Amino acid sequence: MFKIHGFNYVLCLSASVSLNLFFFYLFLSHEPELELTWTKEAALEAEAVASLSCSGHGRAFLDGSIGSDGKPICECYSCYKGPDCSEFSLECPANAESGDPLFLESYWMQHAASSAVVVAGWHRMSYVLSDGSSISIKLKTLIQRLHAIVGNANTTDRFIVFGDGSTQLLNAAVHALSEAGSSHPASVVASVPYYTAYARQTEFFKSDEFGWEGDALKWKTTNDSSTDFVEFVTSPNNPDGQLRQPTLRGPSVKTIHDHAYYWPHFTAIPAPADEDVMLFSISKITGHAGSRFGWALIKDENVYQTMTTYSELNTMGASRDTQLRAFKLLKAVLKDGGNDFFDFGHNRMSDRWLRLNNILSTSNRFSLQKLAPKYCSYFKKITDPSPAYAWLKCEREEEKDCNSVLKAAGIIGREGSFFGAESRYVRLSLLKTPDDFDWLLQRLKALIAEEGPKTI
Amino acid sequence: MFKIHGFNYVLCLSASVSLNLFFFYLFLSHEPELELTWTKEAALEAEAVASLSCSGHGRAFLDGSIGSDGKPICECYSCYKGPDCSEFSLECPANAESGDPLFLESYWMQHAASSAVVVAGWHRMSYVLSDGSSISIKLKTLIQRLHAIVGNANTTDRFIVFGDGSTQLLNAAVHALSEAGSSHPASVVASVPYYTAYARQTEFFKSDEFGWEGDALKWKTTNDSSTDFVEFVTSPNNPDGQLRQPTLRGPSVKTIHDHAYYWPHFTAIPAPADEDVMLFSISKITGHAGSRFGWALIKDENVYQTMTTYSELNTMGASRDTQLRAFKLLKAVLKDGGNDFFDFGHNRMSDRWLRLNNILSTSNRFSLQKLAPKYCSYFKKITDPSPAYAWLKCEREEEKDCNSVLKAAGIIGREGSFFGAESRYVRLSLLKTPDDFDWLLQRLKALIAEEGPKTI
Repeated sequence: MFKIHGFNYVLCLSASVSLNLFFFYLFLSHEPELELTWTKEAALEAEAVASLSCSGHGRAFLDGSIGSDGKPICECYSCYKGPDCSEFSLECPANAESGDPLFLESYWMQHAASSAVVVAGWHRMSYVLSDGSSISIKLKTLIQRLHAIVGNANTTDRFIVFGDGSTQLLNAAVHALSEAGSSHPASVVASVPYYTAYARQTEFFKSDEFGWEGDALKWKTTNDSSTDFVEFVTSPNNPDGQLRQPTLRGPSVKTIHDHAYYWPHFTAIPAPADEDVMLFSISKITGHAGSRFGWALIKDENVYQTMTTYSELNTMGASRDTQLRAFKLLKAVLKDGGNDFFDFGHNRMSDRWLRLNNILSTSNRFSLQKLAPKYCSYFKKITDPSPAYAWLKCEREEEKDCNSVLKAAGIIGREGSFFGAESRYVRLSLLKTPDDFDWLLQRLKALIAEEGPKTI
Repeated sequence: MFKIHGFNYVLCLSASVSLNLFFFYLFLSHEPELELTWTKEAALEAEAVASLSCSGHGRAFLDGSIGSDGKPICECYSCYKGPDCSEFSLECPANAESGDPLFLESYWMQHAASSAVVVAGWHRMSYVLSDGSSISIKLKTLIQRLHAIVGNANTTDRFIVFGDGSTQLLNAAVHALSEAGSSHPASVVASVPYYTAYARQTEFFKSDEFGWEGDALKWKTTNDSSTDFVEFVTSPNNPDGQLRQPTLRGPSVKTIHDHAYYWPHFTAIPAPADEDVMLFSISKITGHAGSRFGWALIKDENVYQTMTTYSELNTMGASRDTQLRAFKLLKAVLKDGGNDFFDFGHNRMSDRWLRLNNILSTSNRFSLQKLAPKYCSYFKKITDPSPAYAWLKCEREEEKDCNSVLKAAGIIGREGSFFGAESRYVRLSLLKTPDDFDWLLQRLKALIAEEGPKTI
């Protein structure tokens, strides 16, 4: 019996020791987790907010409202409501008014780890960086690399100015270029249809040095060499997506090339832009409109100096917090040379353009701008059009107020007169969330279905 | 022997089983760590950069330079150099020129967890928040609570405008107040000594509506009611720390009250400010000059509307990234009603003022502005002076260029003429790092020691 007992003991003991060894192995092989300390609270807080799905029709933010249960409240996309954004309102108009670049939001949700940034409480509190400027050298270098990789702008021998959005740089450039001219006030112009902000901003900030003079085309045939001109040239153009050249040329003309949309999402890139004053914005590359960050590539040193002084006296440079975020986002974009990111952007935008065209192709009443496939030096192939906006025209003679026609059908666009054009045109934004875009298509489909079959 | 063996088996087995039970208890009692997912990489990166001590004479940043070993490079405080900022240069001048509020940097390093913020890649990409504005409602509410707790401004019946630093709001207010006047251009003025930016900014952005006209005092005795005036009143004043009232009054005078320094760090708070146009900046409360964030409290709706339009057309509002950070920082400040934070701020600044005065008290050659202890409604006691700047005067008749006198002694200040004052005055910043301040005191001590004993 003892022997049996003894045998049992041996068996049990060896089993028990094996188990001990197993536990010990577990203990040894357990990789010591890199322990987070001061960042942990903020990281948990951010993940908790992000974990709210809001039914895929909204999202919660760290600085959003908090419910009575202490939990963050979902901020719903347009037309959705309810605590989890699951209630869709069929009466809701399709709002295609603003250029909110939310088509990229889901990209960043899918690339959460590479795009997150932790801002320490003591991050860059100073007015200046270590070289005495207000500009992050690392971000500047990254922007130069971005342009080199995308091939959309030549940064060689160019100064870089940062702005609180390219919005700030528009007027900074007007200021610098008109100051550099010989006659004042300089006439600031743009060819119809043009981005509204040029007119509104120039009128609001007008001075002895410059004033808004509207359509560039009406000055083309005048031989008024006593007036200095500053022309805004937007390429691709907002609202119609066309690649543009200056309308005015000559010794008394200076040009601001607004290349906000000159990225592979929105257009084929035929060649690097190589002008004296070029503006870009993070809003239309990564989609971060709310961050208010843009940059200018400037050839002339005096123009650069005046724009830098403008930025200094206006806002003392762009927020260093935003510069850090822009740095992280652009680093995420360039991780694989931009392939993943620009593929996503172009696929999404060209798909939208295609679907919109399919619907509009059945209409006699409405038409879209014509855009052709083109060779893109970034993708190294011919790519389909993928504009940021539809520039819609009401074709019926009597429908001069196109925006009202759309409005009656529950579609909100931005009317042509905003762009200096006829009210027969309306700009529809194709940049918004998938929800917004799908709803726009449905509304358009219903409107066009009223026409009956298309006559040829 | 078997028995002995048996005994051994029993003993070993019970020990082994106990060990197993212990391991099992460990396994059960191990609290499952709240696992971070997408924030982890960014959090580890931030902690790695923050772990560089830079000998306490510098710090590394996430968007700073990277060495050839792949590690971040320390950015050293002035006068320190070397890979770990441990080398002090005795030839280095004491630079007290800028108003960089780095005296608060160590506070945020000590409160790292409560002030850190994680910005998700998809945080507030839109131009607008859910209410259609560019202003975070939660931040607005927090600012109102901050003023209520500190008791430095009445926010009741006031609109709030956010700016890219209060710098942007200065000109937005000039614009709005001169537009509201009846005669143009309005004369923009401030009493000497005044903050340089008022003059430089107003001159740079001058228009048909307003222009810079210098010292307010020279207009006090004119009975020119045909001119509209906009007066900047800085209280406490930059450079001399005095609480100020307007110099000009009357129906054609509008006043911008710049309260950037009206916080318990820098002055006793006698009562809440209650004016029509009041400006504040995060730079001088939390010390985040680099974030470029300020706000205006505005009574009149038209003035508010014009300032909002200014902000929209100039930069489309303050960066939403910065708004999130300001929200987190102000929440950290108010954690305990602000006690810990304002105690730190006031102790540091009043200590600096005391030490500076002790040194200057032995001098016939230099003098400081006079500031008396006052009752502070926030601390509920009489507090010692704690100004942001010393307004130093060279007392010797022949030393009209005080800045040169200091410069020869290795001290860099900002000369009086910058503030519209005599060059016999120099502003010395007391806001910078402890290293900067200590070096300034040493340089001053050496300079004053040259005088010999003070004559009375």
